[in-house]
Order: sequence, then structure tokens, then C-alpha cells
Amino acid sequence: MQDERGTVTASGPAAIPLPAVAGIELAATSAGIYRRRRPDLCLMRIAPGASAAAVFTRNACAAAPVLIARRHLQVAAPRYLLINAGNANAGTGTRGLADALRLCEGVASLGGCPVEQVLPFSTGVIGEYLPVDAVLAVLPALHEALRADGWQDCGRAIMTTDTTLKAATRRFDTSAGAVTLTGIAKGAGMIHPDMATLLVFIGTDARVPRDVLQQALRQAVDGSFNRICVDGDTSTNDAVIVLASGAGAALDDAGDQRRFATALAEACTALAQAVVRDGEGATKFITLVIEQGGTTEECLAVGRAIATSPLVKTAFFASDPNWGRILAAVGRAGVAGLDPSRVDIFLDEVQIVQGGARAVSYAEEAGAAVMRQPDIGVRVRLGRGMASATLWTCDLSDAYVRINADYRS
Amino acid sequence: MQDERGTVTASGPAAIPLPAVAGIELAATSAGIYRRRRPDLCLMRIAPGASAAAVFTRNACAAAPVLIARRHLQVAAPRYLLINAGNANAGTGTRGLADALRLCEGVASLGGCPVEQVLPFSTGVIGEYLPVDAVLAVLPALHEALRADGWQDCGRAIMTTDTTLKAATRRFDTSAGAVTLTGIAKGAGMIHPDMATLLVFIGTDARVPRDVLQQALRQAVDGSFNRICVDGDTSTNDAVIVLASGAGAALDDAGDQRRFATALAEACTALAQAVVRDGEGATKFITLVIEQGGTTEECLAVGRAIATSPLVKTAFFASDPNWGRILAAVGRAGVAGLDPSRVDIFLDEVQIVQGGARAVSYAEEAGAAVMRQPDIGVRVRLGRGMASATLWTCDLSDAYVRINADYRS
Repeated sequence: MQDERGTVTASGPAAIPLPAVAGIELAATSAGIYRRRRPDLCLMRIAPGASAAAVFTRNACAAAPVLIARRHLQVAAPRYLLINAGNANAGTGTRGLADALRLCEGVASLGGCPVEQVLPFSTGVIGEYLPVDAVLAVLPALHEALRADGWQDCGRAIMTTDTTLKAATRRFDTSAGAVTLTGIAKGAGMIHPDMATLLVFIGTDARVPRDVLQQALRQAVDGSFNRICVDGDTSTNDAVIVLASGAGAALDDAGDQRRFATALAEACTALAQAVVRDGEGATKFITLVIEQGGTTEECLAVGRAIATSPLVKTAFFASDPNWGRILAAVGRAGVAGLDPSRVDIFLDEVQIVQGGARAVSYAEEAGAAVMRQPDIGVRVRLGRGMASATLWTCDLSDAYVRINADYRS
Repeated sequence: MQDERGTVTASGPAAIPLPAVAGIELAATSAGIYRRRRPDLCLMRIAPGASAAAVFTRNACAAAPVLIARRHLQVAAPRYLLINAGNANAGTGTRGLADALRLCEGVASLGGCPVEQVLPFSTGVIGEYLPVDAVLAVLPALHEALRADGWQDCGRAIMTTDTTLKAATRRFDTSAGAVTLTGIAKGAGMIHPDMATLLVFIGTDARVPRDVLQQALRQAVDGSFNRICVDGDTSTNDAVIVLASGAGAALDDAGDQRRFATALAEACTALAQAVVRDGEGATKFITLVIEQGGTTEECLAVGRAIATSPLVKTAFFASDPNWGRILAAVGRAGVAGLDPSRVDIFLDEVQIVQGGARAVSYAEEAGAAVMRQPDIGVRVRLGRGMASATLWTCDLSDAYVRINADYRS
């Protein structure tokens, strides 16, 4: 389905219209990385002269492709991205680095560009070696197949335990002309089973200076992918990359750049929310709004304490308006000098906590009615200042445990 | 059962010999706080001239009894402790404070002491008011019933969702004579459903200066209750208190004080481990040893990242030697400059990770054999220095979700 703001999220095998982006071509194939044959390898080609920006995992045990992509981005603008699912190439030591480099060299020789212009990305099981020869064998045909309308195929090929294709697109006008922005994401948990997890690829035809692009991406990620929590884990492979091909409008005007940044933030937020909605075992989508904080950081700390609390998350699963668990999570968030007697908590419009205690007006049935909804808003007022933050999370169900206990067996 | 070091842990209704502590008397009764009649109220009397030390929750939304006990301890040595289960008196605002004070006044008038010499403790559901009149009504009979051998009754009366009585005792000699130390604890999760959770009461007949007692307790707690993790939540009511009645040996000698501190640390560790073993839904007991860290703090950070990772914990539940999840948790622990190529990981004696990648010698069946054990050791070497830390945790099972999703319904 496509909502009024142009967001595309869909499940099932139906084809979704994902606008092509001038200057970017894609293709997907099966390299046999998964035992059961399915698309598991993507190639993206970006026009010469493009700019790119990326945000990578802060996990100290970052995967081989992350280390190489980071290094390559420092020396050249990318011409190719090679992405595989089914194997994270993480926990693979020096052999993993050599494997990722061999794949980059394979693409570079087909594309006639320096190896530094190829960025590798991997997602899947940690600790197994990539079937490098099998991947190299399918590269020539994959390179031949590159085409502008390959976004959907690639969106499916990067899925691992995802149950839905995650995509978003925006079209907007600028003083320099119309701009298209299309993105795909994979992730169904901040981290998967032993899957190393979140990958996001966004393309635009706009010409955007690299520093502007990097700043816009950093802000967009801070307000989207850094605001979601499925299970509190973060992965060795997380990467978000935006490619501006420059084939379309040149955004030199500051107002146009702001419009671009807004569209990028909207697309990232839509993709981030799609990840939470597809969270492992999730049955509820929860929007946390933390208000009246002294700083954004303390609002985020409170939001993360709530979003990562197994007790809060199981209460959502049980549709139990268990405000004591939310209050206890607020209290353990590490906000110095927090005065509980100024804390208010709402479930949607129902006030459950007033001044740190059960709201006088609160009737349990009103709270329970909100908790039974598939989409729930939780608003916490800290009574300390003017800062606020919004985060998204999901509940914790027995299905989460089953999925993660069964994954490898 | 009683092991060779004098630790007592037991389940079921059988009576356990818990040595009396000269200068401390206890009694338990039912005040009807639980709907189903069961012991839910304890009184402890300590001889005049005793010293006491305590460690309380750092949760900013600390319960009313925590606020009052903290304040009373600042002005006087306690003569009485009043402890109830079934109701945490947390999230109860100013009325909660008034309720706790009324109970202290009731005890003070029976005992003929200032109200500041009475400390209140509560554990149970958050956000409901205490049945103050019902508690006051049973106080006279409870006060009459105080006796030296009431430890076991009290250990049972403070249980909430605990399935085992948690107690530990130590007897040791000093230059000033023999010393007895007996303690009881409740807690089956760092925090319960909406239960506010960990309470520990330890008594000794030794005469110990208050500053020595406080320092010994702080160190004991740092190495025991601060090293366990069931679900990563912390509660509004956590409290650990040690009472030195002074009826026995006077520990003025530094060597004797060190012996006391060691015995206290051993008792706290035994009680902390009993809490983890009784963790909600737990099927495995896991000892994490983090070695070769640059500092103890970074060892603890790595240990906590592992112990709180739902992915690691579900892997333990599934008996899956999923070292990728452990490595990813090590990587996200926030240790600056961590070099994954120096990280080794062992399951008991089986090396699973060597230099950040799968150990060459590793055979999955060897890892799986360790993972099937009810007690599992995980050793992580960071390759950075000489510091180390030991923590204890349990697995995450579907029973945890069921217990916490069903608790209030």
C-alpha cells in the first residue's frame, strides 16, 4: 500500500511501484549463499560524480565489509555497492577481510573502476566464511542485468528473517527541479538471531554536496534508526547509506537542501518504523514520546529504558496497563535529580500516572482499552524542562523467544 | 541442603537450620496483605547499641519505605525493622510516605523507641496503597512473638514470586571470639513482574564499627548483588541491610574486620547466586568471567552487555553454542578501542572464539555439550590488561514471558 505521503510498505509477493532513481541501476540474483535457493546478492551501480554518505555500526566487533566500506568511502566516491544476505562476514578475522576485498576486486574489474569505488555489505549469520567463488561466478551476469527499476528485487534479496519488504520513496520539488528519493531497508530486530542486521540503501537523483549529504543523513538517522528498539541489541553489520547520483536537480540552494534533508528524514523514519513493525514476534507498535525533559539526551535515556525493559515489553504483549513497570523504568534511566512527584504518564489520552502516583482520574478499564490496540502511544512528562524525544518500539512476546531459540537448530 | 562452606539454600517447605544471631529477634505473621492468607509481615528487633549499614536502590522513583529507611538510618541506629511482602508501597506519592511512617510509629510505640529507630521495607505490587490498619492490628501480637530462631519464618514471609527460600549463614573465628552471620534474601529477577524486588537482611552478633560495616557491605554488594542480572531491570525497592548487634565478639582488630568482610562477601555472593538460580523462567545458571580487561569497569560493561542480551540469553535457553551472539554483545559493550582480533571466548574449557573469529580447534558438538549443562561458565578474554570481573546470570525462556505477561491477569 502507498499512503498519502508516498511511503511504501508492503508484505507478501505483490509487486510494489518503487520509482527508479536516475543515475542508479540495480540487479539481484541468487549466489547460493542460502541453502534454499533464493535471491541473496545485489549489485548497485551509481553514476560517476555521485556523492555518498553513510552511517555504520558503533559495534567494536564490526564486520569485515563494514571495515572495508568505511575505508573505501574515505578515499573515493562509490561506483558500485555489492550486498549479500545469508552471511554477515562477521567474526571472520583476516580471512573475512580478504574475502570482502576479493569480491570488491571482482566487481571493480567488471566495472573498470578502482577497487576503492566498490563498497561491500553483508547481512546474515555471524562467524561463517563467505562462498567467495560462488559469488564471483555470478557477478558477470549480475553486472549485465543492472537496470533502473531493480529496487524491488534488491529490497527482497536483502531480506533475512524479515517478513515484509521495507521500502520508502519521496518525490518533491525544489527550485532546481523535481527530486526523487527511493530507499530499501532490511531488519526485523535491532539485531537478528545471530543475524547482523540493519541495512538501508537510499538513492536520490539530486546532486547534493557530500558534506550536506552526510549532515542530512546523520540527522535523519538520529531521528529514525537511532530511535527504534526491538530488543536493545545492536549488530556488527548495521549500515545506512545514501547515494546522490547527481543525474537530476543540483541542490545548491540552502532551502532546497533543507527540503532534501526533510525528505530524507521522512524516508528514514518510515523505514525505521517498518523495521519495528516487523520486529521479531512483535504484536504491538509503540510510540514513546518523552516530554518536558531538561535535555534531549535525558529524554532519550528515559525512552530507551522503557523501550528495552523486558517487563514493560511483556506488559504490552499482555495488554496489561501496568504503569508501575513504566514508572520503574523511568526511575532507572539514570536521570540525575529526577523528581518522581513531577512525572506524568499517559497511554494515548488516558492519564495513568499523575505526580509519580496513580492518576486520581484513572480507571483501569480505560488503560486496558488502549493496551489492546495494535498501535499504542505512551507519553511521559518529566516536568524538568522543554526538551522532548520520540522513539518507537514493540512488545516482547513468547514468539520472540521461540524465534531466537529455534533459529539455528 | 547445606554445602561445605555453610551456605544454605533450599526449596520446598522443609525446615532448614538457620543459626540464631545473639542480639537479634524476629517474628512473622499474616497481615492479610495477600488476598490468599500467608505470612506477609516480619518484625526484627536489634539490641540497643547495634550498628547497621545499608545499600539501597539507585532508582529515582524509589519507594516510600526506601526514602524513609534511608532518612532514619542517617539519624539513629535501628532497633526495629518492619518488612512486608505483597505490596511495594511504590508509586504511592505522599500518601505512601505517610502510610510507611504510621507503621513505623506503631512499632515505635510498642517498642518504646523513637520512630527514627524503626526502618520500613516493602516488596510487592507497585502503585497500590498499604492496608495500614490491618498491619497495625497485628503488630502487638507480632511484637510479642519475637524470638531468636525466627530467621526461617521471616525468610518465607518475604517471598513473593520466589520459588525457593534464600538464606546463607557463616560461622568463623576471630581473635575476639566466634562470630555468627545469618542472612535471608528475596528476589527472583532483578525486578519482578511489577514487583519491586530485591530485599536482603543479614544479621551478625559481632560488634563492628559502623564505618567498617558500611565499607564491608558496599564491597560485598559490589561483588555480589551488583554482579547478577536476570532481566536487566532494577527496582524501586531494592535494599540490602546488615545489622551488627554487638552482642558477641567485638571486632576492633583489622584482621578480624577483614575476616568479617570476607564472610559477609561470601554470604552476599551465595544469596545473590540463589536469586539468579531462582530467576523467572530460568533453566540455566551462567557464570561470566571477563578477563584481561584494562579496568574492572570495562570488564563489568562487557559482562553486563552479555548478561542483558536477549539474543545471548535465548541461545542459552536453546543450548545453542551461538558464539556470534556473544561476540556481538562484547562488541557493543562500549569499550573504547577494543581490538576484536585479541578477543578469546571459552564455554567452560572449550575455546569457541580465538582472535575474534571461530577458534580453529572448535567443534560445534563440544560447545553444544557444554550448553546442555544446567551450569555453564563463559570466559571472555579481552587482551587489554590485567583486570577481571565475575558476574552471574540466567537464560531467557518462554516461561519468563509467560510469567511476566500473566502476572496481573
